[in-house]
Amino acid sequence: MPDLAQLNEFLARDFPQTRCTVVALAERSATVRHPGRGGGAAPGGTVSGPVLMAVADVALYVAILAEIGIVPLTVTTQLSVNFMRKPVAGRDILGVCTLMKVGRSLAVGEVALYSQGKDEMVAHAVGTYSIPAAARAR
Amino acid sequence: MPDLAQLNEFLARDFPQTRCTVVALAERSATVRHPGRGGGAAPGGTVSGPVLMAVADVALYVAILAEIGIVPLTVTTQLSVNFMRKPVAGRDILGVCTLMKVGRSLAVGEVALYSQGKDEMVAHAVGTYSIPAAARAR
Amino acid sequence: MPDLAQLNEFLARDFPQTRCTVVALAERSATVRHPGRGGGAAPGGTVSGPVLMAVADVALYVAILAEIGIVPLTVTTQLSVNFMRKPVAGRDILGVCTLMKVGRSLAVGEVALYSQGKDEMVAHAVGTYSIPAAARAR
Amino acid sequence: MPDLAQLNEFLARDFPQTRCTVVALAERSATVRHPGRGGGAAPGGTVSGPVLMAVADVALYVAILAEIGIVPLTVTTQLSVNFMRKPVAGRDILGVCTLMKVGRSLAVGEVALYSQGKDEMVAHAVGTYSIPAAARAR
Repeated sequence: MPDLAQLNEFLARDFPQTRCTVVALAERSATVRHPGRGGGAAPGGTVSGPVLMAVADVALYVAILAEIGIVPLTVTTQLSVNFMRKPVAGRDILGVCTLMKVGRSLAVGEVALYSQGKDEMVAHAVGTYSIPAAARAR
Repeated sequence: MPDLAQLNEFLARDFPQTRCTVVALAERSATVRHPGRGGGAAPGGTVSGPVLMAVADVALYVAILAEIGIVPLTVTTQLSVNFMRKPVAGRDILGVCTLMKVGRSLAVGEVALYSQGKDEMVAHAVGTYSIPAAARAR
Repeated sequence: MPDLAQLNEFLARDFPQTRCTVVALAERSATVRHPGRGGGAAPGGTVSGPVLMAVADVALYVAILAEIGIVPLTVTTQLSVNFMRKPVAGRDILGVCTLMKVGRSLAVGEVALYSQGKDEMVAHAVGTYSIPAAARAR
Repeated sequence: MPDLAQLNEFLARDFPQTRCTVVALAERSATVRHPGRGGGAAPGGTVSGPVLMAVADVALYVAILAEIGIVPLTVTTQLSVNFMRKPVAGRDILGVCTLMKVGRSLAVGEVALYSQGKDEMVAHAVGTYSIPAAARAR
Protein backbone atom coordinates (compact mmCIF):
# COMPACT_ATOMS: atom_id res chain seq x y z
CA MET A 1 0.00 0.00 0.00
CA PRO A 2 1.25 3.54 -0.73
CA ASP A 3 3.00 5.52 1.98
CA LEU A 4 2.73 9.23 2.70
CA ALA A 5 5.44 10.25 0.21
CA GLN A 6 3.88 8.17 -2.57
CA LEU A 7 0.43 9.67 -1.94
CA ASN A 8 1.89 13.19 -2.08
CA GLU A 9 3.70 12.36 -5.34
CA PHE A 10 0.43 11.03 -6.76
CA LEU A 11 -1.48 14.19 -5.73
CA ALA A 12 1.21 16.49 -7.17
CA ARG A 13 1.26 14.60 -10.48
CA ASP A 14 -2.44 13.80 -11.03
CA PHE A 15 -4.08 16.69 -9.15
CA PRO A 16 -1.78 19.66 -9.79
CA GLN A 17 -4.68 22.02 -9.00
CA THR A 18 -5.00 20.87 -5.37
CA ARG A 19 -3.10 22.82 -2.75
CA CYS A 20 -3.44 20.01 -0.17
CA THR A 21 -0.65 17.83 1.13
CA VAL A 22 -0.97 14.62 3.12
CA VAL A 23 0.56 15.10 6.56
CA ALA A 24 -0.35 11.88 8.40
CA LEU A 25 -1.63 8.37 7.76
CA ALA A 26 -2.96 5.87 10.29
CA GLU A 27 -5.16 2.79 10.29
CA ARG A 28 -8.16 3.80 8.13
CA SER A 29 -7.33 7.47 8.61
CA ALA A 30 -5.55 10.27 6.78
CA THR A 31 -4.87 13.92 7.59
CA VAL A 32 -4.37 16.56 4.90
CA ARG A 33 -3.33 20.21 5.21
CA HIS A 34 -4.43 23.15 3.06
CA PRO A 35 -2.62 26.50 3.28
CA GLY A 36 -4.58 29.27 4.96
CA ARG A 37 -3.21 31.96 2.69
CA GLY A 38 -3.30 32.42 -1.07
CA GLY A 39 -5.85 31.33 -3.68
CA GLY A 40 -9.47 30.67 -2.85
CA ALA A 41 -9.89 32.97 0.13
CA ALA A 42 -13.46 34.00 0.94
CA PRO A 43 -14.44 37.57 1.83
CA GLY A 44 -12.72 38.34 5.13
CA GLY A 45 -9.63 36.30 4.26
CA THR A 46 -10.90 32.94 5.50
CA VAL A 47 -10.84 29.71 3.51
CA SER A 48 -14.08 29.53 1.47
CA GLY A 49 -16.76 26.85 1.69
CA PRO A 50 -15.93 25.31 -1.70
CA VAL A 51 -12.27 25.03 -0.66
CA LEU A 52 -13.31 23.25 2.56
CA MET A 53 -15.35 20.82 0.43
CA ALA A 54 -12.33 20.22 -1.80
CA VAL A 55 -10.13 19.55 1.26
CA ALA A 56 -12.70 17.03 2.55
CA ASP A 57 -12.78 15.34 -0.85
CA VAL A 58 -8.98 15.03 -0.99
CA ALA A 59 -8.80 13.72 2.61
CA LEU A 60 -11.34 11.01 1.79
CA TYR A 61 -9.60 10.11 -1.47
CA VAL A 62 -6.19 9.80 0.14
CA ALA A 63 -7.51 7.76 3.09
CA ILE A 64 -9.15 5.32 0.65
CA LEU A 65 -6.10 5.06 -1.63
CA ALA A 66 -3.97 4.32 1.45
CA GLU A 67 -6.24 1.31 2.07
CA ILE A 68 -6.82 -0.04 -1.44
CA GLY A 69 -3.76 1.21 -3.33
CA ILE A 70 -3.51 4.02 -5.87
CA VAL A 71 -6.55 3.38 -8.05
CA PRO A 72 -7.14 6.61 -9.95
CA LEU A 73 -10.59 5.64 -11.24
CA THR A 74 -12.01 5.68 -7.73
CA VAL A 75 -14.58 8.51 -7.84
CA THR A 76 -16.68 10.47 -5.37
CA THR A 77 -20.37 9.56 -5.62
CA GLN A 78 -21.69 11.62 -2.71
CA LEU A 79 -20.35 14.33 -0.45
CA SER A 80 -22.29 16.08 2.29
CA VAL A 81 -20.80 18.97 4.28
CA ASN A 82 -21.99 20.89 7.34
CA PHE A 83 -20.36 24.29 7.79
CA MET A 84 -20.28 25.17 11.47
CA ARG A 85 -17.82 27.95 12.20
CA LYS A 86 -15.88 30.52 10.24
CA PRO A 87 -12.28 29.38 9.69
CA VAL A 88 -9.66 31.57 11.36
CA ALA A 89 -8.25 33.99 8.75
CA GLY A 90 -4.81 33.01 7.52
CA ARG A 91 -4.64 29.71 9.40
CA ASP A 92 -4.03 26.42 7.60
CA ILE A 93 -6.95 24.01 7.39
CA LEU A 94 -6.49 20.42 8.59
CA GLY A 95 -8.83 17.72 7.32
CA VAL A 96 -8.85 14.51 9.37
CA CYS A 97 -10.56 11.63 7.58
CA THR A 98 -11.74 8.47 9.32
CA LEU A 99 -13.04 5.69 7.11
CA MET A 100 -16.20 3.99 8.36
CA LYS A 101 -16.47 1.35 5.63
CA VAL A 102 -14.18 0.06 2.91
CA GLY A 103 -16.41 -2.36 1.05
CA ARG A 104 -16.07 -4.20 -2.22
CA SER A 105 -17.64 -1.43 -4.28
CA LEU A 106 -18.17 1.54 -1.92
CA ALA A 107 -16.05 3.28 0.71
CA VAL A 108 -17.56 5.70 3.23
CA GLY A 109 -15.75 8.10 5.51
CA GLU A 110 -16.12 11.22 7.58
CA VAL A 111 -13.83 14.24 7.67
CA ALA A 112 -13.42 16.69 10.55
CA LEU A 113 -12.08 20.04 9.32
CA TYR A 114 -10.21 22.41 11.65
CA SER A 115 -8.40 25.72 11.58
CA GLN A 116 -4.93 24.71 12.77
CA GLY A 117 -4.55 25.07 16.51
CA LYS A 118 -8.29 25.25 17.25
CA ASP A 119 -10.30 22.49 18.93
CA GLU A 120 -13.72 23.18 17.41
CA MET A 121 -14.41 21.92 13.89
CA VAL A 122 -15.04 24.52 11.23
CA ALA A 123 -16.86 21.94 9.12
CA HIS A 124 -17.68 18.24 8.98
CA ALA A 125 -18.11 16.12 5.86
CA VAL A 126 -19.31 12.62 5.06
CA GLY A 127 -18.57 11.15 1.65
CA THR A 128 -18.88 8.00 -0.44
CA TYR A 129 -16.46 6.83 -3.11
CA SER A 130 -17.13 4.18 -5.71
CA ILE A 131 -14.29 1.69 -6.14
CA PRO A 132 -13.88 0.35 -9.69
CA ALA A 133 -14.19 -3.38 -10.41
CA ALA A 134 -10.55 -3.48 -11.54
CA ALA A 135 -9.40 -2.51 -8.05
CA ARG A 136 -11.66 -5.08 -6.44
CA ALA A 137 -10.26 -7.83 -8.66
CA ARG A 138 -6.73 -7.35 -7.37
CA MET B 1 -34.59 42.99 -5.59
CA PRO B 2 -31.35 42.70 -7.61
CA ASP B 3 -31.50 41.85 -11.31
CA LEU B 4 -29.15 39.66 -13.30
CA ALA B 5 -26.64 42.41 -14.04
CA GLN B 6 -26.51 43.47 -10.39
CA LEU B 7 -25.94 39.89 -9.24
CA ASN B 8 -23.09 39.48 -11.74
CA GLU B 9 -21.52 42.75 -10.55
CA PHE B 10 -21.80 41.52 -6.96
CA LEU B 11 -20.14 38.18 -7.82
CA ALA B 12 -17.34 39.86 -9.76
CA ARG B 13 -16.63 42.29 -6.93
CA ASP B 14 -17.08 40.10 -3.84
CA PHE B 15 -16.17 36.66 -5.26
CA PRO B 16 -13.37 37.39 -7.74
CA GLN B 17 -12.26 33.74 -7.44
CA THR B 18 -15.47 32.32 -8.91
CA ARG B 19 -15.59 31.68 -12.65
CA CYS B 20 -19.42 31.47 -12.65
CA THR B 21 -21.78 33.98 -14.21
CA VAL B 22 -25.52 34.23 -13.69
CA VAL B 23 -27.31 33.56 -16.98
CA ALA B 24 -30.98 33.45 -15.99
CA LEU B 25 -33.32 34.35 -13.13
CA ALA B 26 -36.91 33.27 -12.61
CA GLU B 27 -39.37 32.99 -9.74
CA ARG B 28 -37.36 31.26 -6.97
CA SER B 29 -34.85 30.02 -9.53
CA ALA B 30 -31.43 30.98 -10.90
CA THR B 31 -29.14 29.48 -13.54
CA VAL B 32 -25.36 29.93 -13.48
CA ARG B 33 -22.74 28.95 -16.04
CA HIS B 34 -19.16 27.80 -15.43
CA PRO B 35 -16.66 27.56 -18.30
CA GLY B 36 -15.73 24.01 -19.33
CA ARG B 37 -12.15 24.91 -20.10
CA GLY B 38 -9.37 26.40 -18.00
CA GLY B 39 -8.63 26.15 -14.27
CA GLY B 40 -9.85 23.32 -12.11
CA ALA B 41 -10.05 20.56 -14.71
CA ALA B 42 -10.00 17.01 -13.36
CA PRO B 43 -7.91 14.23 -14.92
CA GLY B 44 -9.38 13.66 -18.40
CA GLY B 45 -10.20 17.32 -18.93
CA THR B 46 -13.63 17.32 -17.27
CA VAL B 47 -14.78 19.74 -14.60
CA SER B 48 -13.78 18.31 -11.19
CA GLY B 49 -16.09 17.38 -8.34
CA PRO B 50 -15.03 20.30 -6.12
CA VAL B 51 -15.72 22.72 -8.99
CA LEU B 52 -19.23 21.22 -9.41
CA MET B 53 -19.79 21.77 -5.68
CA ALA B 54 -18.65 25.37 -6.01
CA VAL B 55 -21.04 25.91 -8.95
CA ALA B 56 -23.92 24.48 -6.89
CA ASP B 57 -23.00 26.77 -4.00
CA VAL B 58 -22.96 29.88 -6.24
CA ALA B 59 -26.28 28.91 -7.89
CA LEU B 60 -27.94 28.59 -4.49
CA TYR B 61 -26.42 31.82 -3.24
CA VAL B 62 -27.54 33.81 -6.27
CA ALA B 63 -31.06 32.34 -6.23
CA ILE B 64 -31.42 33.33 -2.56
CA LEU B 65 -30.00 36.84 -3.04
CA ALA B 66 -32.44 37.36 -5.93
CA GLU B 67 -35.24 36.68 -3.41
CA ILE B 68 -34.03 38.48 -0.30
CA GLY B 69 -31.70 41.13 -1.73
CA ILE B 70 -27.90 41.28 -1.65
CA VAL B 71 -27.13 40.27 1.92
CA PRO B 72 -23.48 39.27 1.94
CA LEU B 73 -23.57 37.65 5.38
CA THR B 74 -25.87 34.92 4.16
CA VAL B 75 -23.78 31.73 4.57
CA THR B 76 -23.97 28.09 3.53
CA THR B 77 -24.69 25.82 6.50
CA GLN B 78 -25.09 22.54 4.63
CA LEU B 79 -24.41 21.28 1.13
CA SER B 80 -24.94 17.73 -0.08
CA VAL B 81 -23.97 16.64 -3.60
CA ASN B 82 -24.55 13.44 -5.57
CA PHE B 83 -22.16 12.96 -8.49
CA MET B 84 -23.87 10.87 -11.16
CA ARG B 85 -22.11 11.17 -14.52
CA LYS B 86 -18.77 12.41 -15.76
CA PRO B 87 -19.12 15.92 -17.24
CA VAL B 88 -18.39 16.13 -20.97
CA ALA B 89 -14.80 17.33 -21.44
CA GLY B 90 -14.57 20.96 -22.48
CA ARG B 91 -18.29 21.71 -22.18
CA ASP B 92 -19.58 24.48 -19.95
CA ILE B 93 -21.45 23.47 -16.79
CA LEU B 94 -24.92 24.86 -16.14
CA GLY B 95 -26.29 24.89 -12.58
CA VAL B 96 -30.05 25.35 -12.30
CA CYS B 97 -31.17 26.18 -8.77
CA THR B 98 -34.77 25.88 -7.57
CA LEU B 99 -35.52 27.19 -4.09
CA MET B 100 -37.77 24.96 -2.01
CA LYS B 101 -38.02 27.20 1.04
CA VAL B 102 -37.13 30.79 1.80
CA GLY B 103 -37.88 31.07 5.50
CA ARG B 104 -37.15 33.67 8.11
CA SER B 105 -33.78 32.22 9.06
CA LEU B 106 -33.08 29.37 6.59
CA ALA B 107 -33.37 28.97 2.84
CA VAL B 108 -33.22 25.55 1.16
CA GLY B 109 -32.80 24.79 -2.52
CA GLU B 110 -31.77 22.14 -4.98
CA VAL B 111 -29.41 22.47 -7.92
CA ALA B 112 -29.38 20.35 -11.08
CA LEU B 113 -25.97 20.43 -12.78
CA TYR B 114 -25.60 19.69 -16.50
CA SER B 115 -22.93 19.63 -19.19
CA GLN B 116 -24.29 22.15 -21.66
CA GLY B 117 -26.43 20.54 -24.35
CA LYS B 118 -26.96 17.25 -22.45
CA ASP B 119 -30.25 16.19 -20.84
CA GLU B 120 -28.90 13.99 -18.06
CA MET B 121 -27.63 15.68 -14.90
CA VAL B 122 -23.94 15.28 -14.09
CA ALA B 123 -24.65 16.04 -10.44
CA HIS B 124 -27.41 17.15 -8.10
CA ALA B 125 -27.03 19.23 -4.95
CA VAL B 126 -29.22 20.26 -2.05
CA GLY B 127 -28.11 23.09 0.19
CA THR B 128 -29.15 25.24 3.13
CA TYR B 129 -28.20 28.84 3.73
CA SER B 130 -28.56 30.75 6.98
CA ILE B 131 -30.06 34.24 6.56
CA PRO B 132 -28.75 36.82 9.04
CA ALA B 133 -31.15 38.60 11.42
CA ALA B 134 -30.32 41.94 9.78
CA ALA B 135 -31.78 40.73 6.46
CA ARG B 136 -34.86 39.39 8.16
CA ALA B 137 -35.50 42.70 9.87
CA ARG B 138 -35.79 44.57 6.57
CA MET C 1 -41.39 -4.78 -15.36
CA PRO C 2 -43.84 -4.80 -12.43
CA ASP C 3 -47.00 -2.70 -12.62
CA LEU C 4 -48.68 -0.75 -9.84
CA ALA C 5 -50.72 -3.70 -8.55
CA GLN C 6 -47.66 -5.97 -8.45
CA LEU C 7 -45.64 -3.38 -6.55
CA ASN C 8 -48.42 -2.98 -3.98
CA GLU C 9 -48.65 -6.77 -3.57
CA PHE C 10 -44.89 -6.88 -3.06
CA LEU C 11 -45.02 -4.11 -0.42
CA ALA C 12 -47.93 -5.76 1.41
CA ARG C 13 -46.18 -9.14 1.48
CA ASP C 14 -42.55 -8.18 2.14
CA PHE C 15 -43.03 -4.90 4.07
CA PRO C 16 -46.15 -5.49 6.17
CA GLN C 17 -45.00 -2.73 8.54
CA THR C 18 -45.24 0.02 5.91
CA ARG C 19 -48.51 1.97 5.68
CA CYS C 20 -47.64 3.32 2.20
CA THR C 21 -49.36 2.37 -1.03
CA VAL C 22 -48.16 3.10 -4.55
CA VAL C 23 -50.66 5.39 -6.28
CA ALA C 24 -48.93 6.25 -9.58
CA LEU C 25 -46.06 5.14 -11.79
CA ALA C 26 -44.50 7.00 -14.71
CA GLU C 27 -41.22 6.97 -16.61
CA ARG C 28 -38.53 6.92 -13.87
CA SER C 29 -41.08 8.17 -11.32
CA ALA C 30 -43.36 6.76 -8.63
CA THR C 31 -45.84 8.33 -6.20
CA VAL C 32 -46.71 6.78 -2.85
CA ARG C 33 -49.34 7.75 -0.30
CA HIS C 34 -49.17 7.46 3.49
CA PRO C 35 -52.30 7.93 5.64
CA GLY C 36 -52.40 11.15 7.66
CA ARG C 37 -54.15 9.55 10.58
CA GLY C 38 -53.23 6.66 12.85
CA GLY C 39 -49.83 5.33 13.95
CA GLY C 40 -46.71 7.42 14.00
CA ALA C 41 -48.25 10.84 14.58
CA ALA C 42 -45.93 13.46 16.04
CA PRO C 43 -46.97 15.84 18.83
CA GLY C 44 -49.71 18.04 17.33
CA GLY C 45 -51.14 15.24 15.22
CA THR C 46 -48.89 15.72 12.19
CA VAL C 47 -46.91 12.98 10.51
CA SER C 48 -43.52 12.71 12.28
CA GLY C 49 -40.10 13.23 10.72
CA PRO C 50 -39.14 9.54 10.89
CA VAL C 51 -42.39 8.64 9.10
CA LEU C 52 -41.60 11.17 6.35
CA MET C 53 -38.17 9.54 5.98
CA ALA C 54 -39.80 6.12 5.72
CA VAL C 55 -42.20 7.41 3.03
CA ALA C 56 -39.24 8.81 1.06
CA ASP C 57 -37.45 5.48 1.37
CA VAL C 58 -40.46 3.52 0.09
CA ALA C 59 -41.02 5.96 -2.81
CA LEU C 60 -37.41 5.54 -3.92
CA TYR C 61 -37.53 1.78 -3.55
CA VAL C 62 -40.73 1.44 -5.57
CA ALA C 63 -39.51 3.78 -8.32
CA ILE C 64 -36.32 1.71 -8.66
CA LEU C 65 -38.11 -1.66 -8.63
CA ALA C 66 -40.44 -0.35 -11.37
CA GLU C 67 -37.31 0.19 -13.51
CA ILE C 68 -35.21 -2.87 -12.72
CA GLY C 69 -37.83 -5.42 -11.63
CA ILE C 70 -38.60 -6.70 -8.15
CA VAL C 71 -35.13 -7.30 -6.73
CA PRO C 72 -35.57 -7.53 -2.99
CA LEU C 73 -31.87 -7.31 -2.16
CA THR C 74 -31.69 -3.76 -3.43
CA VAL C 75 -30.79 -1.72 -0.32
CA THR C 76 -30.61 1.93 0.68
CA THR C 77 -27.04 3.11 1.11
CA GLN C 78 -27.70 6.80 1.73
CA LEU C 79 -30.72 8.95 2.49
CA SER C 80 -30.66 12.68 3.14
CA VAL C 81 -33.80 14.59 4.11
CA ASN C 82 -34.55 18.30 4.52
CA PHE C 83 -37.61 19.06 6.64
CA MET C 84 -39.11 22.36 5.54
CA ARG C 85 -42.68 22.76 6.76
CA LYS C 86 -44.93 21.09 9.30
CA PRO C 87 -47.28 18.60 7.60
CA VAL C 88 -50.98 19.53 7.84
CA ALA C 89 -52.54 17.52 10.71
CA GLY C 90 -54.65 14.61 9.52
CA ARG C 91 -53.80 14.98 5.84
CA ASP C 92 -52.30 12.12 3.86
CA ILE C 93 -48.67 12.48 2.78
CA LEU C 94 -47.76 12.07 -0.87
CA GLY C 95 -44.18 11.19 -1.82
CA VAL C 96 -43.26 11.82 -5.45
CA CYS C 97 -39.99 10.17 -6.47
CA THR C 98 -38.04 11.09 -9.60
CA LEU C 99 -35.03 8.93 -10.42
CA MET C 100 -31.94 10.85 -11.54
CA LYS C 101 -29.74 7.85 -12.28
CA VAL C 102 -30.31 4.13 -12.66
CA GLY C 103 -26.79 2.81 -13.13
CA ARG C 104 -25.29 -0.65 -13.12
CA SER C 105 -24.66 -0.70 -9.38
CA LEU C 106 -26.25 2.47 -7.94
CA ALA C 107 -29.58 4.25 -8.42
CA VAL C 108 -30.13 7.83 -7.22
CA GLY C 109 -33.42 9.66 -6.89
CA GLU C 110 -35.11 12.58 -5.22
CA VAL C 111 -38.45 12.61 -3.42
CA ALA C 112 -40.75 15.61 -2.95
CA LEU C 113 -43.07 15.11 0.04
CA TYR C 114 -46.39 16.97 0.30
CA SER C 115 -49.42 17.16 2.56
CA GLN C 116 -52.19 16.23 0.16
CA GLY C 117 -53.76 19.25 -1.49
CA LYS C 118 -50.90 21.63 -0.65
CA ASP C 119 -48.39 23.01 -3.17
CA GLU C 120 -45.43 23.56 -0.88
CA MET C 121 -43.25 20.58 0.00
CA VAL C 122 -43.16 19.52 3.63
CA ALA C 123 -39.85 17.76 3.05
CA HIS C 124 -37.42 16.79 0.31
CA ALA C 125 -35.21 13.72 0.22
CA VAL C 126 -32.37 12.43 -1.92
CA GLY C 127 -31.36 8.79 -1.68
CA THR C 128 -29.06 6.17 -3.15
CA TYR C 129 -29.79 2.48 -3.48
CA SER C 130 -27.26 -0.25 -4.19
CA ILE C 131 -28.39 -2.73 -6.86
CA PRO C 132 -27.13 -6.29 -6.34
CA ALA C 133 -24.94 -7.97 -8.98
CA ALA C 134 -27.62 -10.63 -9.56
CA ALA C 135 -30.05 -7.95 -10.78
CA ARG C 136 -27.45 -6.42 -13.04
CA ALA C 137 -26.71 -9.79 -14.64
CA ARG C 138 -30.28 -10.20 -15.86
CA MET D 1 -30.42 20.82 32.64
CA PRO D 2 -32.44 17.58 32.49
CA ASP D 3 -30.87 14.32 33.65
CA LEU D 4 -31.28 10.86 32.16
CA ALA D 5 -34.46 10.03 34.08
CA GLN D 6 -36.08 13.34 33.11
CA LEU D 7 -35.26 12.83 29.44
CA ASN D 8 -36.75 9.32 29.52
CA GLU D 9 -39.90 10.66 31.18
CA PHE D 10 -40.14 13.34 28.48
CA LEU D 11 -39.75 10.75 25.68
CA ALA D 12 -42.34 8.43 27.22
CA ARG D 13 -44.85 11.25 27.63
CA ASP D 14 -44.34 13.27 24.43
CA PHE D 15 -43.13 10.55 22.06
CA PRO D 16 -45.11 7.45 23.08
CA GLN D 17 -44.48 5.96 19.62
CA THR D 18 -40.69 5.78 20.09
CA ARG D 19 -39.23 2.54 21.40
CA CYS D 20 -35.92 4.22 22.33
CA THR D 21 -34.63 4.83 25.83
CA VAL D 22 -31.75 7.07 26.85
CA VAL D 23 -29.01 4.96 28.42
CA ALA D 24 -26.14 7.43 28.88
CA LEU D 25 -25.39 11.15 28.89
CA ALA D 26 -22.04 12.86 28.76
CA GLU D 27 -20.62 16.26 27.81
CA ARG D 28 -22.31 17.04 24.45
CA SER D 29 -23.15 13.36 23.98
CA ALA D 30 -26.08 10.99 24.48
CA THR D 31 -26.57 7.27 23.89
CA VAL D 32 -29.97 5.72 23.16
CA ARG D 33 -31.00 2.08 22.87
CA HIS D 34 -33.66 0.58 20.61
CA PRO D 35 -34.87 -3.01 21.11
CA GLY D 36 -33.72 -5.47 18.45
CA ARG D 37 -36.95 -7.46 18.56
CA GLY D 38 -40.54 -6.50 17.93
CA GLY D 39 -42.11 -3.84 15.69
CA GLY D 40 -40.38 -2.45 12.66
CA ALA D 41 -38.22 -5.42 11.73
CA ALA D 42 -37.02 -5.52 8.11
CA PRO D 43 -37.05 -8.70 6.00
CA GLY D 44 -34.58 -11.08 7.65
CA GLY D 45 -35.42 -9.92 11.17
CA THR D 46 -33.00 -6.99 11.32
CA VAL D 47 -33.88 -3.46 12.33
CA SER D 48 -35.05 -1.58 9.19
CA GLY D 49 -33.48 1.52 7.68
CA PRO D 50 -36.33 3.84 8.69
CA VAL D 51 -36.05 2.61 12.29
CA LEU D 52 -32.29 3.35 12.25
CA MET D 53 -33.12 6.87 11.02
CA ALA D 54 -35.65 7.28 13.84
CA VAL D 55 -33.05 6.14 16.40
CA ALA D 56 -30.55 8.68 15.02
CA ASP D 57 -33.19 11.40 15.24
CA VAL D 58 -34.01 10.57 18.88
CA ALA D 59 -30.32 10.40 19.84
CA LEU D 60 -29.73 13.87 18.36
CA TYR D 61 -32.84 15.29 19.98
CA VAL D 62 -31.97 13.97 23.42
CA ALA D 63 -28.34 15.12 23.18
CA ILE D 64 -29.52 18.63 22.30
CA LEU D 65 -32.20 18.76 25.03
CA ALA D 66 -29.56 17.68 27.56
CA GLU D 67 -27.58 20.82 26.56
CA ILE D 68 -30.33 23.42 26.18
CA GLY D 69 -33.11 22.07 28.41
CA ILE D 70 -36.37 20.42 27.42
CA VAL D 71 -37.58 22.66 24.59
CA PRO D 72 -40.19 20.66 22.72
CA LEU D 73 -40.37 23.02 19.73
CA THR D 74 -36.84 22.14 18.73
CA VAL D 75 -37.25 20.46 15.31
CA THR D 76 -35.11 18.49 12.89
CA THR D 77 -34.29 20.50 9.77
CA GLN D 78 -31.94 18.04 8.09
CA LEU D 79 -30.93 14.42 8.59
CA SER D 80 -28.52 12.49 6.41
CA VAL D 81 -27.84 8.79 6.96
CA ASN D 82 -25.33 6.37 5.46
CA PHE D 83 -26.28 2.70 5.82
CA MET D 84 -23.13 0.60 5.91
CA ARG D 85 -23.79 -2.87 7.28
CA LYS D 86 -26.82 -5.02 7.99
CA PRO D 87 -27.73 -4.91 11.70
CA VAL D 88 -27.39 -8.24 13.50
CA ALA D 89 -30.84 -9.87 13.71
CA GLY D 90 -32.41 -9.60 17.16
CA ARG D 91 -29.70 -7.41 18.65
CA ASP D 92 -30.52 -4.06 20.22
CA ILE D 93 -29.36 -0.96 18.36
CA LEU D 94 -27.27 1.65 20.16
CA GLY D 95 -27.13 5.20 18.82
CA VAL D 96 -24.26 7.32 20.13
CA CYS D 97 -24.69 11.02 19.40
CA THR D 98 -21.87 13.55 19.59
CA LEU D 99 -22.82 17.20 19.16
CA MET D 100 -20.48 19.21 16.94
CA LYS D 101 -22.17 22.58 17.36
CA VAL D 102 -24.78 24.00 19.70
CA GLY D 103 -25.33 27.47 18.32
CA ARG D 104 -27.88 30.17 18.96
CA SER D 105 -30.32 28.91 16.32
CA LEU D 106 -28.90 25.61 15.01
CA ALA D 107 -27.41 22.50 16.62
CA VAL D 108 -25.48 19.92 14.58
CA GLY D 109 -24.47 16.44 15.64
CA GLU D 110 -23.41 13.06 14.38
CA VAL D 111 -24.71 9.67 15.45
CA ALA D 112 -22.87 6.36 15.23
CA LEU D 113 -25.30 3.41 15.17
CA TYR D 114 -24.22 -0.07 16.29
CA SER D 115 -25.68 -3.52 16.80
CA GLN D 116 -25.01 -4.10 20.47
CA GLY D 117 -21.70 -5.87 21.05
CA LYS D 118 -20.29 -5.16 17.58
CA ASP D 119 -17.46 -2.70 16.84
CA GLU D 120 -18.38 -1.74 13.28
CA MET D 121 -21.11 0.84 12.76
CA VAL D 122 -24.26 -0.33 10.99
CA ALA D 123 -25.06 3.26 10.01
CA HIS D 124 -23.91 6.83 10.55
CA ALA D 125 -26.07 9.94 10.62
CA VAL D 126 -25.52 13.68 10.67
CA GLY D 127 -28.39 15.96 11.59
CA THR D 128 -29.32 19.57 12.21
CA TYR D 129 -31.95 20.83 14.61
CA SER D 130 -33.44 24.30 14.69
CA ILE D 131 -33.67 25.81 18.17
CA PRO D 132 -36.65 28.13 18.71
CA ALA D 133 -36.12 31.77 19.66
CA ALA D 134 -37.91 31.18 22.99
CA ALA D 135 -35.21 28.71 24.03
CA ARG D 136 -32.46 31.08 23.01
CA ALA D 137 -33.97 33.88 25.07
CA ARG D 138 -33.68 31.94 28.31
